[in-house]
Amino acid sequence: MTDLPKRVDIHEEGPREGFQIEPGPISTADKVRFCEALAETGLHDVQCVSFVDPRRVPGMADAVEVAQSIRRRPGVHYSAIALNLRGYERAIQTPLDITGGLQMSASNTFSIRNTNKDNAETLAEQRRQLEFFRDRGIPVDSGIVMTAFGCNFEGGIAPETVRDCVGSLLALADEFGITLDRVRLADTVGWASPASIQRVVGLVRETWPSLRLALHLHDTRGTGLANALMGLQMGIDSFDSSCAGLGGCPFAGHRGAAGNICTEDLVFMCEEMGIETGIDLDALIECARMAEDIVAHPLPGKIMHGGSLTKYRQGAHT
Amino acid sequence: MTDLPKRVDIHEEGPREGFQIEPGPISTADKVRFCEALAETGLHDVQCVSFVDPRRVPGMADAVEVAQSIRRRPGVHYSAIALNLRGYERAIQTPLDITGGLQMSASNTFSIRNTNKDNAETLAEQRRQLEFFRDRGIPVDSGIVMTAFGCNFEGGIAPETVRDCVGSLLALADEFGITLDRVRLADTVGWASPASIQRVVGLVRETWPSLRLALHLHDTRGTGLANALMGLQMGIDSFDSSCAGLGGCPFAGHRGAAGNICTEDLVFMCEEMGIETGIDLDALIECARMAEDIVAHPLPGKIMHGGSLTKYRQGAHT
Repeated sequence: MTDLPKRVDIHEEGPREGFQIEPGPISTADKVRFCEALAETGLHDVQCVSFVDPRRVPGMADAVEVAQSIRRRPGVHYSAIALNLRGYERAIQTPLDITGGLQMSASNTFSIRNTNKDNAETLAEQRRQLEFFRDRGIPVDSGIVMTAFGCNFEGGIAPETVRDCVGSLLALADEFGITLDRVRLADTVGWASPASIQRVVGLVRETWPSLRLALHLHDTRGTGLANALMGLQMGIDSFDSSCAGLGGCPFAGHRGAAGNICTEDLVFMCEEMGIETGIDLDALIECARMAEDIVAHPLPGKIMHGGSLTKYRQGAHT
Repeated sequence: MTDLPKRVDIHEEGPREGFQIEPGPISTADKVRFCEALAETGLHDVQCVSFVDPRRVPGMADAVEVAQSIRRRPGVHYSAIALNLRGYERAIQTPLDITGGLQMSASNTFSIRNTNKDNAETLAEQRRQLEFFRDRGIPVDSGIVMTAFGCNFEGGIAPETVRDCVGSLLALADEFGITLDRVRLADTVGWASPASIQRVVGLVRETWPSLRLALHLHDTRGTGLANALMGLQMGIDSFDSSCAGLGGCPFAGHRGAAGNICTEDLVFMCEEMGIETGIDLDALIECARMAEDIVAHPLPGKIMHGGSLTKYRQGAHT
């Protein structure tokens, strides 16, 4: 385990992932309260909302109001996503820390089903978005390759395909004089195993040794934290995750699509391995329980139900 | 990942773990049906029941009837556990494949709370059991060290303590001229992390390089499969697990005690990593869904809800 990072960055996506897919309705006040509580745990990157078509995603109809209501804690990055220029136009009217990103799916079919655009059209749209970001002074910080480990429509994805996607995103960024802070490899529909993490991360890293890679993992088939462990062992120090395991992909093509890996379970694993997260695990577990109260049904996180080891360690030998 | 085994043995504990803790009542016929279905998947070791005090564990009151009713499939080992001689007396009246085992808890306090015996009394009782096994011709095949990775009462457990427990069990076996087939290290109350798996397995293996080790893992805090991955990476080729994630420890001292790692999620991970299990994953997923029907509430297994990749791979590019 010599490549283990000393510290990991965790990008919290629970509010956005959860409020996007939960049947709800969830009140605006609850959404705000949850984002604010997360920002108190030591998380310094909380993705609050998405600016998407409210007819497709009714849970995000109040995205602007949520964004405007959050009491901001200094040093925390409050992010959001948008899928198109109309979304970005709404996003930049809010006080959130809007950044632009580049995205591409390793599966052309997934791209078509998800966005009605094939990869060539996606790249063309990315160019228009980059011009828009430049015109509006929106910083561009990252790229993401979706379905990097498999796709329900195309099946397995060759590591070389992922490498080529990363190459396309880097080339596009380069055209615009942008250096990407990191590139996320996303297991959008939960196909990854430790073996495919090793193969894909290995090939991309071999090609661009100094590029910072992040993993966006879903726990659809139970291997989420095992996949994260393999990522850690390969030196990955940036993960996306969701408090309480909130979320899921509404466009994944099957009912059982699970949410992101669970933030507090990931934090537990990292801290037990001596990898710093900067996060107060017990405070984060309270957030997860708050999320369960808000959505009013059990959520998949484990340590929120099992409890942290803190009290047992404090009470040891008594 | 050079130490990965080519093949793993999976010891299925779902029936025993589940029927022991589920509030039920579960009919004898359902218990039998579930054990029989598991034996059709390629699993060759199914732990069906425990012979315990029905006043403490009402779900096992029909253990003898279950044991007598199972239609046996050749080549499958139908096992059971018993905690004392009275239990073994009942067990050997049945057609199950009863073997004796040695056990000890790395936490003396857990031992007292769980069995009303401290470690010295436990060892003394083991001796009486070994005499009983010898007199009755019951083969003794394995040892288990419980709470090998931490304890809710004593806190963290030093790897040296686990090593000493393994040493005690091996010495006891040796007294009786028995060679243990394997020694299980059990994360009874879900404290393990990949780091502690590495430390404990590492020290025990260093001490007895040719001793076959098995892991018995619970998924209390979400790291179950990550812990299994670390075990695999250290060459562990024998795991206990529960179909659908059935189970939990009724004496673990807290409500959130989760069941064993989920067999079908483990099988998925292994097979995706090129490690043979000999198990038909899709058939096993059907068993997990049967278990959910039988207990009539959601069970924690993931791939039973997310679905295997088989149909997507077959349908790829269509």
